[in-house]
Amino acid sequence: MKITEMHITPIALGDPPLLNAAGLHAPYCLRTVVELQTDAGIHGLAEVPGSAAVDRALAAVRDTVIGSDPLNWHGLRARLAERCAAETSVARGDKPWDGRTRVQVYSALDVACLDLAGRAFGVPVATLLGGIVRERVPYSAYLFYKYEGAGGELAFGTDPPATGWAAARQRAALDPGGIVAQARAMVQEFGFESIKLKGGVFEPAQEVAAMQALREAFGPGVPLRLDPNALWSVETSIRCGRELEGILEYLEDPCRTQEGMAAVRRALKTPLATNMCTTSFDDLPGSVRHGSEDIILTDHHFWGGLRASMELAAHCRTFGRGVSMHSNNHAGISLAAMTHLGAAMPNLSYALDTHYPWQRDEIVVGGRIKIEGGCVTLPKGPGLGVELDRAALAQAHDTYRRAGLTERNDEIEMQKKTPGWKFSATRW
Amino acid sequence: MKITEMHITPIALGDPPLLNAAGLHAPYCLRTVVELQTDAGIHGLAEVPGSAAVDRALAAVRDTVIGSDPLNWHGLRARLAERCAAETSVARGDKPWDGRTRVQVYSALDVACLDLAGRAFGVPVATLLGGIVRERVPYSAYLFYKYEGAGGELAFGTDPPATGWAAARQRAALDPGGIVAQARAMVQEFGFESIKLKGGVFEPAQEVAAMQALREAFGPGVPLRLDPNALWSVETSIRCGRELEGILEYLEDPCRTQEGMAAVRRALKTPLATNMCTTSFDDLPGSVRHGSEDIILTDHHFWGGLRASMELAAHCRTFGRGVSMHSNNHAGISLAAMTHLGAAMPNLSYALDTHYPWQRDEIVVGGRIKIEGGCVTLPKGPGLGVELDRAALAQAHDTYRRAGLTERNDEIEMQKKTPGWKFSATRW
Repeated sequence: MKITEMHITPIALGDPPLLNAAGLHAPYCLRTVVELQTDAGIHGLAEVPGSAAVDRALAAVRDTVIGSDPLNWHGLRARLAERCAAETSVARGDKPWDGRTRVQVYSALDVACLDLAGRAFGVPVATLLGGIVRERVPYSAYLFYKYEGAGGELAFGTDPPATGWAAARQRAALDPGGIVAQARAMVQEFGFESIKLKGGVFEPAQEVAAMQALREAFGPGVPLRLDPNALWSVETSIRCGRELEGILEYLEDPCRTQEGMAAVRRALKTPLATNMCTTSFDDLPGSVRHGSEDIILTDHHFWGGLRASMELAAHCRTFGRGVSMHSNNHAGISLAAMTHLGAAMPNLSYALDTHYPWQRDEIVVGGRIKIEGGCVTLPKGPGLGVELDRAALAQAHDTYRRAGLTERNDEIEMQKKTPGWKFSATRW
Repeated sequence: MKITEMHITPIALGDPPLLNAAGLHAPYCLRTVVELQTDAGIHGLAEVPGSAAVDRALAAVRDTVIGSDPLNWHGLRARLAERCAAETSVARGDKPWDGRTRVQVYSALDVACLDLAGRAFGVPVATLLGGIVRERVPYSAYLFYKYEGAGGELAFGTDPPATGWAAARQRAALDPGGIVAQARAMVQEFGFESIKLKGGVFEPAQEVAAMQALREAFGPGVPLRLDPNALWSVETSIRCGRELEGILEYLEDPCRTQEGMAAVRRALKTPLATNMCTTSFDDLPGSVRHGSEDIILTDHHFWGGLRASMELAAHCRTFGRGVSMHSNNHAGISLAAMTHLGAAMPNLSYALDTHYPWQRDEIVVGGRIKIEGGCVTLPKGPGLGVELDRAALAQAHDTYRRAGLTERNDEIEMQKKTPGWKFSATRW
């Protein structure tokens, strides 16, 4: 079997004005859909975070991909490694979010080839990752401080939804009370059994208060997580971490660097999780040496694919780390891929993160994938178990063209609301 | 698909009187063949080192295996872990060779399920391990000090072969000259491009002299390895290692424990390899902490299967270790499995070990698998690419029954030649 076509389609999906350490989400988030076609008539799909840089990096390897055997990942990956070296690689930490493109090229092709192999063999991708450990994969409620609005007017119309989560999603949440209200609406709609707050937005005392309010509202039976996105100093991390001792399931990336995380970890009983201080296999020796975290949050888009994420899980097992999953805004292809990974990972120790409830748009057949009881059920059918809705894809691509965005830049978006606002790597 | 039958067949293969740290090889080596049958009419094969203990451990999980989905390894492995806990597990180091049975149960079922999956999907096992990196997998010439004889009279007749390796295999090799002659015959027959001597037999000076003689005979273009099987003290390891500096590709397990290996490693420029001080995922944190070796020799029989060996390779990549492969006596099913692993491992950095040239018997269709130019070519066909020769299997099983051996015990065998001989963990 040989790959005969590789299609790269940038899309934009409506996204509410969510606040985070890097600023403010634009009205549209960008994703890129990759489709492989083969001479056997079998195709494979993948989705990665979108940007002009990622699209260029993908286009640059197209002639390497075409002609390759999609069942020989090791062979293709070695050729990709030769083609997308330093020029398409940005070190993690140069931007407030993960701006590396090479790992995203690996991820797109790993996932699309696995989807293709699953279709060829008639088995789910999770089977090709070693077997299905759980059919229902748990996700957490992912709360954001936000401004009023649901974003994305270009995409799927402006009619304001009237009730439930669709209404709650539009409302502002700028204080502990707003966060608790958001959590109640999200949990009611999706049945999540754990809750994460994206922090790093307001001064630490306000975010500590929000976590305490969530604990009060939901009780000790609902695990809580806070992610200040490394905006805190080591001292602030320790002080706030102590105030939250006993309340958090884990504290995610309170501060920067493995050394910083290790210092905080020595001072706290609360486990620390990361997707910022240990983000690649090259980082693992330092993680082990410093003892910088308890839980590594994989993200197959940034660890180089689903197979690489399974390798990370094996490393976590060996070195006594827990493992769970980081998320960015995404559509149904990524949600399916994340769910196959969660279904296949024996040592998945925490519910996965997902931004999915914040989107309304969808590009897969059947529309929005259901989250029930806090879980996504592994899609039926071979491969990833999802198909492209061509009309929806065309609409999302049209939105991309009309929105005029070519990369995520939350700082510029924030400056529209707060002139002169600047990202700061350590704010408090 | 469900597993409906699990057949466990102990076999004995003729084996010459090979000397090693544990004593002397008996005239027969033991292997156990595992066959899985499914309700889809597709079967899967595996082979593991044989012993009554391994056969019992396999039989004890038969009712767990039957009814399982062979495509869900994670599910089956979790159930096996519950069934074969401490009672079937002997810590590495309790015997002069690896006496753990649980990892062999994992290995047998991992390999048989992969063979089965490959047959079901119509692809080689190496494809299911991520893809074929090389079609021709390099092996090393594995030299042994030995007594006269080729062993195994019960199995396939006593007619002495007259020429070439078949004749050389019978000859004694008890000094550097004998080792060089053995090497010449083995290299001539199989085309090996690297050479390993099983040491730990004679006092270190004799074995150092043998390596120097091999270097003289073959020149610097043929990588050489020596494996004293941890019989040397740290001081002896450093002293002899210094005498061999510049001559060895690597020195394998000169002494015991990760701390001991680390001390030797700090004193030598020659890389150290191990299959004795770091033999499980539980050992890896200590290996990293101590810096105990440069190369880890996987053996899918003892690391828990081919998938586990691929995980080990990923760990080796992360922590800057080389990776290659340890061997025991084996037949063609294991050789095929080892070759698929070698074909799929991107970071295989050294030619694999194999005892295969020392056997005459074979249980797979087509008889002895060819080693040409020092390489085994990946077998054609789906799965492992080998089929059982039922008549040969029956003969090898009959030999097992008649030979009367139930476990490997090189000490007892040695005592037949040297009354009162005792294994000593650190001899020099």
